[in-house]
Amino acid sequence: MTPPVAERATAPEILARCRALVRPALGRAVRQLHPWHAEITAFSLGWDGPDGRAIPGAQGKGIRQALAVLGAEAVGAKAESAVRGAVAVELIHTFSLLHDDIMDGDETRRKRATAWKAYGTGPAVLAGDSLFALAVQTLADAPGARCVPAVRLLAGTLNDLVRGQADDLLFETRPWTGPDAVQPHEYRLMAEHKTGSLLGCAAGLGAVLGGAGRTETDALTAAGRHLGVAFQAMDDVLGIWGDPDVTGKPVHSDLRRQKKTYPVLTALAAGDRAALELGALLRTGEPLDDGAVRRAAGLVEEAGGRSATVAEAHRHLESARACLESVALAPDAVGELLALLPFFVERTV
Amino acid sequence: MTPPVAERATAPEILARCRALVRPALGRAVRQLHPWHAEITAFSLGWDGPDGRAIPGAQGKGIRQALAVLGAEAVGAKAESAVRGAVAVELIHTFSLLHDDIMDGDETRRKRATAWKAYGTGPAVLAGDSLFALAVQTLADAPGARCVPAVRLLAGTLNDLVRGQADDLLFETRPWTGPDAVQPHEYRLMAEHKTGSLLGCAAGLGAVLGGAGRTETDALTAAGRHLGVAFQAMDDVLGIWGDPDVTGKPVHSDLRRQKKTYPVLTALAAGDRAALELGALLRTGEPLDDGAVRRAAGLVEEAGGRSATVAEAHRHLESARACLESVALAPDAVGELLALLPFFVERTV
Repeated sequence: MTPPVAERATAPEILARCRALVRPALGRAVRQLHPWHAEITAFSLGWDGPDGRAIPGAQGKGIRQALAVLGAEAVGAKAESAVRGAVAVELIHTFSLLHDDIMDGDETRRKRATAWKAYGTGPAVLAGDSLFALAVQTLADAPGARCVPAVRLLAGTLNDLVRGQADDLLFETRPWTGPDAVQPHEYRLMAEHKTGSLLGCAAGLGAVLGGAGRTETDALTAAGRHLGVAFQAMDDVLGIWGDPDVTGKPVHSDLRRQKKTYPVLTALAAGDRAALELGALLRTGEPLDDGAVRRAAGLVEEAGGRSATVAEAHRHLESARACLESVALAPDAVGELLALLPFFVERTV
Repeated sequence: MTPPVAERATAPEILARCRALVRPALGRAVRQLHPWHAEITAFSLGWDGPDGRAIPGAQGKGIRQALAVLGAEAVGAKAESAVRGAVAVELIHTFSLLHDDIMDGDETRRKRATAWKAYGTGPAVLAGDSLFALAVQTLADAPGARCVPAVRLLAGTLNDLVRGQADDLLFETRPWTGPDAVQPHEYRLMAEHKTGSLLGCAAGLGAVLGGAGRTETDALTAAGRHLGVAFQAMDDVLGIWGDPDVTGKPVHSDLRRQKKTYPVLTALAAGDRAALELGALLRTGEPLDDGAVRRAAGLVEEAGGRSATVAEAHRHLESARACLESVALAPDAVGELLALLPFFVERTV
């Protein structure tokens, strides 16, 4: 009698399994921090409100954890070997939220006050630093031979992250149109640094901590980077056309904030009538009223910015798939990685 | 014929030699940063003013570099092997200045604007992060077997640094007197974390990168930590009784800012008449006028706070010496380390 074919896990099931594996270790890591930093971190992670109570539904999607765990399984290692890497990546992600919210002046995130608003700028800077330090220590404590490539991967990622954030901040000071305008290819590089690198690091750390060689590690790292860029592209779509009831942000949020994101930059680069009108609307630098914001969103769509961004996301998903198929990996884990792909383009928040 | 005995180098000569060895590598490291962060870093290091010109005399004393270089030489390695460690420590020091000045709200340092005043809070936070990342990368790139202990030493140091800074910030919110008052032993632990750990790291990295085993590394790390605490104790003395013309700070600066430093905390703990009057003066929480500041400085001295702090510095210098004598090390390098000791207690800035 043939055994029944095991049904493939769905994306939510995969994410839940990986989260359940990583969450206790992340909790233990956070409890190693200075109590003040542990409190700010628990608040930032959505575990506790300022009153010490957990906020239901405020936890992250768990994509980074899943990439780390599946990265290890893809190279034939046990899921447990990736836990340290998943924790480090989660700590770095929280560090970057803490600091980026200060730099961007963002007062809310996921419908709650950001850490610097709730605790003050200085404490939020220091709590971020403490997470950065703990992430390095988490990987530095990895056993012998796996410590060196793990720390090197993290160090390169950290450099990418700060470089991407610097470019993102500098984009804000550049004009919408003219010779100094931000070009779509510059935005793509920024997104690869700012978002791609950490997801690449997650998958790559899973491989490294699972004992993989260079070829498998590089393939998984590259796949993760592509997923990160796809994620960012869809984030930019949601930043303009996301449902305010789901995202918790005002309608056409990124246009209201005049953020230079991929849909707008590609629309402006189209050079057609809609692009020219969009450029004229944005380059005044004045705050846009509701009507102007609606008009701008329509123009971005008309000039092809929305479809170009969705296409960019799909292109990166295909590149991620190609990376995963370029080397010999454990088929079950690759199957689960591929099962996550639609999540990157179909998400609503 | 007996060859003439080589004269022992003086402290300024030792510091200059080590600085000359490390400075080019530090310059190369800084040039690897995003150009924006390289500019902010050059400003913070006193290499360039906001006009791009160098500020004479604004460079650091070079103690950390010297400890790293002499740490390597003490274990019989070439000075060059420590350069990577000296660079990492210098980057971490600059990172901590950038972030601490934000947390402390300090607007000037060495008679110049602090980086967050000159460039804005967000850019200063990010420039600090970029230095942190580069420091980790600098050690992660160390050759094979030396990378692991080097990164582990740095990671432990980073954790100490943020813990010390957190306690220092929290001290500010605690009362001067009563059951919740900051006790001298709490201050000592904070100073060991905040100042001792980085100097310990410098000497220890020199040893580790020089290929030393655990015993020599631990002895040099411990010696550096003691020197750091001695340095901080004398810093506290200068913070109250330093010459404003030399320090660039107002007279009795730390008392004016009502900073909880070792001289004041030990004076308050003395419990005598002067201590009681000092407590009454400080616990009002009101800003102190010139007369009150002068009176407070006199009371700290009368209650023994100044002499206790100088004694604390000397005690740690002796402990540093004992650490250096506890293991077999290269006599010339130990001689140079010992030649630096008086510098820690006799400095005026």
